[in-house]
Amino acid sequence: MDVRKFSIPEIIFGRGSLQYVGLCARRLGAEKVLVVSDRGLEEAGWVDRVVEILDQEKLHWIYFGDIVSNPRDFQIEKGVNFYHKHKADVIIGLGGGSPMDAAKGIALVASNGGRIQDYEGANRIHQPLPPMILIPSTAGSGSDISQFAIVTDVERRVKMSIISRTLVPNISIIDPTLLQTKGRKLIVAAAIDALCHAVESYVSRIASPFTELQSLQAIRLIIRNLKRAVESRDMRSLEQLSAASTAAGMAFSNAGLGAEHAIAHSLGGMFDTLHGLVHPVLLPPIMRFNLPACTTKMAQVGEILLGKRRRGNEATALAGIEKLEEFCASMGVQTRLRELVNDSSRLPEMCRMAVNDACLVTNPRQASWEDLLQICEEAW
Amino acid sequence: MDVRKFSIPEIIFGRGSLQYVGLCARRLGAEKVLVVSDRGLEEAGWVDRVVEILDQEKLHWIYFGDIVSNPRDFQIEKGVNFYHKHKADVIIGLGGGSPMDAAKGIALVASNGGRIQDYEGANRIHQPLPPMILIPSTAGSGSDISQFAIVTDVERRVKMSIISRTLVPNISIIDPTLLQTKGRKLIVAAAIDALCHAVESYVSRIASPFTELQSLQAIRLIIRNLKRAVESRDMRSLEQLSAASTAAGMAFSNAGLGAEHAIAHSLGGMFDTLHGLVHPVLLPPIMRFNLPACTTKMAQVGEILLGKRRRGNEATALAGIEKLEEFCASMGVQTRLRELVNDSSRLPEMCRMAVNDACLVTNPRQASWEDLLQICEEAW
Repeated sequence: MDVRKFSIPEIIFGRGSLQYVGLCARRLGAEKVLVVSDRGLEEAGWVDRVVEILDQEKLHWIYFGDIVSNPRDFQIEKGVNFYHKHKADVIIGLGGGSPMDAAKGIALVASNGGRIQDYEGANRIHQPLPPMILIPSTAGSGSDISQFAIVTDVERRVKMSIISRTLVPNISIIDPTLLQTKGRKLIVAAAIDALCHAVESYVSRIASPFTELQSLQAIRLIIRNLKRAVESRDMRSLEQLSAASTAAGMAFSNAGLGAEHAIAHSLGGMFDTLHGLVHPVLLPPIMRFNLPACTTKMAQVGEILLGKRRRGNEATALAGIEKLEEFCASMGVQTRLRELVNDSSRLPEMCRMAVNDACLVTNPRQASWEDLLQICEEAW
Repeated sequence: MDVRKFSIPEIIFGRGSLQYVGLCARRLGAEKVLVVSDRGLEEAGWVDRVVEILDQEKLHWIYFGDIVSNPRDFQIEKGVNFYHKHKADVIIGLGGGSPMDAAKGIALVASNGGRIQDYEGANRIHQPLPPMILIPSTAGSGSDISQFAIVTDVERRVKMSIISRTLVPNISIIDPTLLQTKGRKLIVAAAIDALCHAVESYVSRIASPFTELQSLQAIRLIIRNLKRAVESRDMRSLEQLSAASTAAGMAFSNAGLGAEHAIAHSLGGMFDTLHGLVHPVLLPPIMRFNLPACTTKMAQVGEILLGKRRRGNEATALAGIEKLEEFCASMGVQTRLRELVNDSSRLPEMCRMAVNDACLVTNPRQASWEDLLQICEEAW
C-alpha cells in the first residue's frame, strides 16, 4: 500500500452534545463568534438554542443566515465582509451541507483573501483558517467531518469542489436530536447521500484500511436503520444514522469520491438540483459502470445490501445493485433522472463539465464525458 | 448513548511515510526541532535517518536520547531543561512507547511548568503543548495516537497514567518499514499489548460505536497477521500489524482501558517489568473476571478469536479466552506471572497501588484490590 493520510476533526457525538458548543468555542479562543445557518434552522429553533448557549458562556456572537441550498459564491463574499466588519474570530456552521459548506467558504476567503473561485480543486489553500465548529442538522452531507466544501459559481453555473485538509473543522458536534425536526424526505435524501459517500469512497483509488472500515460500517448502519428511522423517529435509529453519516464522512474525506459525485455536482450547478435527490438516480448505474474495475469490493458491498452472498462476485455485486434500487424505490424517492431534470438536450454539456470535477480523479474506472453521458441516459 | 468524544491525530500511514517528517515539522511552524528517541533506534539507524530528513528541509534540530523503557520522571525533567536551553519549538518522538511517552512528558512540562507528577490522572493539563510529531517504531503502544502518557515516578515506584486530549500529537507518522529492524520478541510483545488495548477498550464503560469498530478491527488484524509477521517478516503482514496498533490506539485513547492495564502499570512501577510481557499473563484472567459484566461483548471477541461461535455467549467467550491463551503460548512468550516477578509477597502492596490507577475507572466490572490480588494469584 502507498502512503495514505487520515485526518478527521475532534468529534463530540451524542444526544445533547450541542450543549458543549459554548465551551468548545471558548476553548478555541473565541471572543466573537460568527454563526452561519439558514432559514430552516432558524424556524426549527436551533439557531436560538446555539446563541443562547453562547450567551450563557458570555461569548459575543453575530449571525449570518443568508444561505440557500447549493450555496452561492456571492453569499460567501457577503459572509466574508460581515465577518471582517464585526471582527469575528471563530466560525460556527449549523445546518445541512449548505450552511456548513458556506461557513467553510467564509472561513477560507476571510483568512486567505481573494475570491472563492481561486481555491477550486485540491490543495490550493496555503494560510491557516480561523477555528471552526460545525454542527450538522442532517445525517448525510459529512461536511462537518470532511475536507470538502462545495460552492456554486453562479456565472459559470458550476458547483466547485474545494478540497483541502485545512477545511476539516477543529470540532464537529454531532447531536442526533437535531434530526427530530427534519421531514421524512430530507432524512431519506441525506441518508442516501451518506450511502453514496460510503460506496464511492469504498471503491476509490485511494481507499485505505482506515477508510474502508468506515465505508462498510456506514453502509451497514444505513441499510439497517433508515426505514425504522423515518417510520418511528425513535432516537436510537436517528443516532445510528448520525453515526453512519459520520463514518461515511471519515471515509470520503480521506479516500475521495467518484463519478457519481462528479455528475451530481454538475447537475446541481447547471439545474440547481437538490443534491440529496440525485443519488438514488445515479448511484446504481454508476455502480454498474464501475463494476469491472472493482468486482471484489462491489461484491462486498452487495453482500451487505443483500444480507448474503450469491454465487460469485459479479452475481453478488449485481444483485446488490438491484437490491439498492428496490431499497431506494421503497423509500419513495425519485429514481429516474427525467423526474429531476426537464431538459435532456443539455446533458452532453453537463457531462463535459463533470469530467473536470475533482471527484472524478479517484473513481475506480476511467470515465470520459461520453461514458458519463451514457450513464445519464441509462438513468433517464 | 451518552455523549462521547473521539479525537485522533492527523495520521500519515504507509511504507516510506517517514520521508514526510521534515515537511510535517515545517507545516507545524518548526524552526528548531527537539528529537526524542533511544539507544535502540540510534543503533538501527532511524535517528540518523530522521535528522537527515530535517537537514534536507533545512530545519535546525537537537537530539535527546537519554530514555530507557518505563521512562522516568527525572529523564523528563532533563529533557525539559534541554528543550528550554536550546529554545526548541516542535517535538518529534521516535520509538516505542517509552520515547514517545517521554516526548509527551517533555512537551507537557515544557509548556505547563511544574513537575510531571502534577499532571497524574485525567484532564489536569490546562495550557496548550508545543506541536508534536510521533513516529512509532513498534506496532503496539499506540502512544502516537492516544491521549495517554505513562511515566514512572521513581521515588513512589509508580507508573503514572497521565490522560488528556492535549496529549494527542498533531501528527502521527506510521511507517511499517521501521518494524523490520525489530526482533521477534518485541514484535510479539507489542502486538499483544495492542490486542489488550483492543479488548479492554471494547468492553470499556465508555466505549462508543466509533471505538468499538476500531477495537474489533484491531483484534481481527492481529489474530490474522501476527504469526506470519514474525515468521516471514513480509511487509504486508507488518503493515497489517501497524494498522491494527493504530486502530487499537484510536479505540483505547477514546474509550479508555481497564483492570489489566491498571495492574500492568503497577507491576511496571514496582518491579520495572517490561510492559509488553505482562499482557499474555494478565489478559486471560482479567477477561474471565470481567465476563459476567460484559458477556455479549466478550462473546463477540471470542467469535473473532475462534473464527466461529459456540452455543451461547458464555461458552463462546470462555472458549475464546482459552484460544487466546493457546495463541500466546504458541508465540513463545511467558504465560505465568511467576516468570516475570520473583517475589509474590509484594503483590498485595502492588494491587493496592493498582486500584488507584486511572485505567481502572473504565473497567466494565468494579474491582477491589482484593479482586486484583485474586487475579494475580490466578495468573501466578
